[in-house]
Amino acid sequence: MIKTVIIGFGNVGFHLAKACKLANEIDLLQIYNRSEVEANEQKEIGVEFISNFKLLKKADVYIVSVKDDVVANVVQQIPFANKIVAHTSGSLQLLNTKQNDAVFYPLQTFSKNKLLNYKTIPICLEANQKKTFTTLEKMAKSISPNVYSISTEQRQELHLSAVFVCNFVNHLYVIGEEICKQHQIPFEILEALIEETANKIKTLSPVEAQTGPALRHDQKTITRHLTQLEKTNFKDIYQQLTNSIAKKHGTKL
Amino acid sequence: MIKTVIIGFGNVGFHLAKACKLANEIDLLQIYNRSEVEANEQKEIGVEFISNFKLLKKADVYIVSVKDDVVANVVQQIPFANKIVAHTSGSLQLLNTKQNDAVFYPLQTFSKNKLLNYKTIPICLEANQKKTFTTLEKMAKSISPNVYSISTEQRQELHLSAVFVCNFVNHLYVIGEEICKQHQIPFEILEALIEETANKIKTLSPVEAQTGPALRHDQKTITRHLTQLEKTNFKDIYQQLTNSIAKKHGTKL
Repeated sequence: MIKTVIIGFGNVGFHLAKACKLANEIDLLQIYNRSEVEANEQKEIGVEFISNFKLLKKADVYIVSVKDDVVANVVQQIPFANKIVAHTSGSLQLLNTKQNDAVFYPLQTFSKNKLLNYKTIPICLEANQKKTFTTLEKMAKSISPNVYSISTEQRQELHLSAVFVCNFVNHLYVIGEEICKQHQIPFEILEALIEETANKIKTLSPVEAQTGPALRHDQKTITRHLTQLEKTNFKDIYQQLTNSIAKKHGTKL
Repeated sequence: MIKTVIIGFGNVGFHLAKACKLANEIDLLQIYNRSEVEANEQKEIGVEFISNFKLLKKADVYIVSVKDDVVANVVQQIPFANKIVAHTSGSLQLLNTKQNDAVFYPLQTFSKNKLLNYKTIPICLEANQKKTFTTLEKMAKSISPNVYSISTEQRQELHLSAVFVCNFVNHLYVIGEEICKQHQIPFEILEALIEETANKIKTLSPVEAQTGPALRHDQKTITRHLTQLEKTNFKDIYQQLTNSIAKKHGTKL
């Protein structure tokens, strides 16, 4: 069993802790969090929680899941040397410390109040040593079969892609919901469409899957939509994405 | 059985034809299309195809699934009076012709080369007569249990929402795929994330489901992403959607 400590109990730390508890190869010893974690969350994970680095146990692997701008500082607080220390950031480079530096980047959208099936999560690994990589690979594979060796540069591009296909997509759901609310339409009517839109690109490429007024060169509908959006904040977004679709697909608008 | 003719064999007509063939209450008599339909597609549906309005059979319901700007003209070609004539447009008003005018709007993204489960598709109905509505409701319910009475104004807003949550979302997938391709990253790595992003809003509202740098007030990552996008067409879209998320969630950027 790989003795593991998680440092940071935000959305990612929370789900990694749950995933580690389920994994056969991982012995989750402790979770460190800067502030005290609520009792019900502590109970949900069922492991020792600490808020003081002096109480940190010796482990094989420390997963550092804190905000990007404090990762380097947090790693310095680990009072042991030559340990595997992996951050979970999509953006940060591989660190260069006295530890065996690594990256353990689970590519998913994490919210504490949303259950996840960890077996489908892609885990992207990077390490400065083969031995470190092998240990992390064993660990990752006991969570999910989808484990990838990804360089810092690739990870940064993956993270950027993820912002488009997840964070920005979700914001478009927010806009769709707001339009529905303003016109007393239940947002649930759009659920099947949202599901199919995501599902479609498993069998078609996104370029093949494109539909809609911008693709069809349907200027009348586009003009009507822009009029409908007149008093909202979303008109510019509509215009810009419509132009981008037209440009990509060579549609004249 | 409700005798039905479909006029127009684009993406929507194709899938409606398949759905009608599966429905117990619907007798699909014919499909009209302006140009001749390929033999393999004719065979897939297994019904008479015509390209001449003179060959149109008498039916209870004509579903008109053609481009918005030719709908009115096509309806005039129907050589029978007092029939139920329903268009499938998300944008057009209820027509006002010598027929029993109606709308039969299936809210989904349709591509011919993508199989669909018709039982999950919401069907939005509108009619100028109660009797017409009742017939269409019977028809729609034999395709899917999700049948709604939706006014023209609501339908136009639904269609606008659908552009955001489907057409624009798919374009963000296109962008995500392009970034991956440029950096030799298999787009499949993002599949679980895309699926979870769509799935998440079944249990959380889209506002609660939001994650990412714009929400976290993570200016460093945003700046890095904009640099990564420097030579692409996607920088403006990134900037605009990031600003919109920040505005919506009251994040200071």
